[in-house]
Amino acid sequence: MNTKTSSIDGGICAPAGFLASGIYAGITNKEIAVSGKENRPAKPETKKNDLGLIFSHTPCQVAAVYTQNKVQGAPIAITREHLADGKAKAVIVNSRNANTCNSDGEEKARKMCELAARALGIKETDVIVASTGVIGQPLDITPIEENIDRLVSSLSASGSDACATAIMTTDLVKKEHAVEFELDGKTCRIGGIAKGSGMIHPNMATMLCFICTDIAISNAMLTQLLGETSRITFNRISVDGDTSTNDMVCLMANGLAGNHCIDRVDDNYKVVRENLFHLMRKLARDIARDGEGATKLLECICDNAPDEDIAENIAKTVITSSLVKTAMFGADANWGRILCAIGYSDGEFAIDRVDVALSSKAGAIDLCRNGSGIDFSEKLAKEILLEDEITILINLNQGKSNATVWGCDLSYDYVRINGDYRT
Amino acid sequence: MNTKTSSIDGGICAPAGFLASGIYAGITNKEIAVSGKENRPAKPETKKNDLGLIFSHTPCQVAAVYTQNKVQGAPIAITREHLADGKAKAVIVNSRNANTCNSDGEEKARKMCELAARALGIKETDVIVASTGVIGQPLDITPIEENIDRLVSSLSASGSDACATAIMTTDLVKKEHAVEFELDGKTCRIGGIAKGSGMIHPNMATMLCFICTDIAISNAMLTQLLGETSRITFNRISVDGDTSTNDMVCLMANGLAGNHCIDRVDDNYKVVRENLFHLMRKLARDIARDGEGATKLLECICDNAPDEDIAENIAKTVITSSLVKTAMFGADANWGRILCAIGYSDGEFAIDRVDVALSSKAGAIDLCRNGSGIDFSEKLAKEILLEDEITILINLNQGKSNATVWGCDLSYDYVRINGDYRT
Repeated sequence: MNTKTSSIDGGICAPAGFLASGIYAGITNKEIAVSGKENRPAKPETKKNDLGLIFSHTPCQVAAVYTQNKVQGAPIAITREHLADGKAKAVIVNSRNANTCNSDGEEKARKMCELAARALGIKETDVIVASTGVIGQPLDITPIEENIDRLVSSLSASGSDACATAIMTTDLVKKEHAVEFELDGKTCRIGGIAKGSGMIHPNMATMLCFICTDIAISNAMLTQLLGETSRITFNRISVDGDTSTNDMVCLMANGLAGNHCIDRVDDNYKVVRENLFHLMRKLARDIARDGEGATKLLECICDNAPDEDIAENIAKTVITSSLVKTAMFGADANWGRILCAIGYSDGEFAIDRVDVALSSKAGAIDLCRNGSGIDFSEKLAKEILLEDEITILINLNQGKSNATVWGCDLSYDYVRINGDYRT
Repeated sequence: MNTKTSSIDGGICAPAGFLASGIYAGITNKEIAVSGKENRPAKPETKKNDLGLIFSHTPCQVAAVYTQNKVQGAPIAITREHLADGKAKAVIVNSRNANTCNSDGEEKARKMCELAARALGIKETDVIVASTGVIGQPLDITPIEENIDRLVSSLSASGSDACATAIMTTDLVKKEHAVEFELDGKTCRIGGIAKGSGMIHPNMATMLCFICTDIAISNAMLTQLLGETSRITFNRISVDGDTSTNDMVCLMANGLAGNHCIDRVDDNYKVVRENLFHLMRKLARDIARDGEGATKLLECICDNAPDEDIAENIAKTVITSSLVKTAMFGADANWGRILCAIGYSDGEFAIDRVDVALSSKAGAIDLCRNGSGIDFSEKLAKEILLEDEITILINLNQGKSNATVWGCDLSYDYVRINGDYRT
């Protein structure tokens, strides 16, 4: 089994046959009531790209996972419908407006697919649609109608950056990554872009992520692959505990690499899974690191647990605790809050065997053994916590299972961003 | 059934036979490592009362509910032990240090009871002990030893204020309340003090609260009473989603009012329940309103739900959502976040029948009907949200059950307080 992986440039356009584009179309996210006149859409303040397109002329097998929120964005309903056959050629996606909780949402989402399909010369059922941004403000389709031809003519093999920018909302940095490896002597590539930032919580596929690959694989195997990898990557991040309405991870495979089509769990499947896991973990960590207002990436490892569910519950509870998050922001080794959060996690385990430690580039330090505090150097703890990547290590000492989750600290900026997002 | 209730002064000393006191003893909450020397306790910066005492010479029937966190403070273990017979005469309580997750915690908690018992001339098993403050820092018992006589000699029928102050941590205001009513022609009183502020989440009795009454009631009825009332008051508040390790609600009845002892669910029981509910709801709301960094009291009512569990889950999920809390802080009528939080609540219900409205002293406004946004005046919404008491009204339109919960907004100050609590 060849497990050699290389990170490469190119993002979603790294795999053969995928083009992408992203432009500023002027999508609006609120209407301003003008006294005595009809409502008019407000103009955005910046001209960040807000409309993106991904296209493969060769038809793709597609697997997707969606939010588990009972409120599901209109784009998700249309995408589910279009992916009934497991195939697609294009993705159209906008930011600034989630097109969710509007009575005309599905009509607008369908219209986005129609516009893209017509301009690309493909069937509208071969188009995936996604939206992210403010919930409950009617989407004005005009900027998309007026700019769809420019969006299509901008498609290029170097368009991943522009598309990654187009899906950003409060994200500060683009998230894109690509890897290369060999199957059957053929070079294969997987590239992805993602956006995160707010409403991020590990209850499903918690953000927008589009992953393209040129491997040949059956739809059933692609679906299994995405399930196995998203469970331990995107489903293990949390920014604020809020599970969004519009999130999806979409994995598209056009088969142009020319490997023997993967149709069972064999060595090739495992090579792909390893590479996809590598790519998705990178994107998931990048989303957590760039959580709204975040100053630090937090990693929480729960080790030696009776089973994986308990390990995951504990690690998620700790990484989600507002008190732990603010302590990490303040570089305060307040392990009592960590133990407290462990204590209100679901699942049966003995709290009096639990050890807690912290680590970062600056070193590692034990804070708590068998559920009680131990002497430690506040100075070293402070040095460790002043780094921008912190690991909280919880050793349950009562089993062999483990789980790793990622999150971020809770800062003034989270409050600033979310106290004034819509206005 | 006489349901006349009057709010009165006096707090926990309003009922006959209860005395209280609170003093500054200099309890420490951290140790400062002095280079080359042994650790020395840090001195607190302010001289807020930090040690409190409640005493009834007449033995009390006592009911108590405790935190459901797996990590339980040492004082809780000792209090459980001392309440095995359901009786007590005194409560000793300190702030600044939770005496939790320390290997010598139970020894110290026991010592607190011994000191109080000796100074009061009662049995140590008649003493309830509670601590609140930083977790995992050894409690220095010296300030308590040195000040116990002064604490006892300060006991008075006007000591409720001083005691209410002694249990405060990051609370900005004291929480105390008392009510008066009649049973069998006798005047009865219930008085309570509480503290809250951080680590407040409705998974049990989520804070310290001591309630004294002079009614005569059996222990079984007292226990039932506290269960029925705490379920719909203290168990329905959330400040930050963190369930603390040390919380308890303690209800003490010394029987001095001279009513016929309540030993069944009769009209008198219901009068007491109504009055106790009134008092506990007041304290619960006060805790939510004074949540760490809070600028607003939030009330969330979920109405017309299929059952009460669903109503409670939904209301709690909404009141706990960081995105809803920051929107309320920013006076932003972002109902999409409310609907999103409803959407990730547990329980089976139809999201497309849900209406959402907001109200305050400034008026009321409908924002969402049948799960979709409707036109509304942003100006009126802003006026409503600029008030300091906001009600979020969720109408599920699919049943007859309801639940009301209380919380607060999420502000910069929450981050400031918790980013720098211990240091």
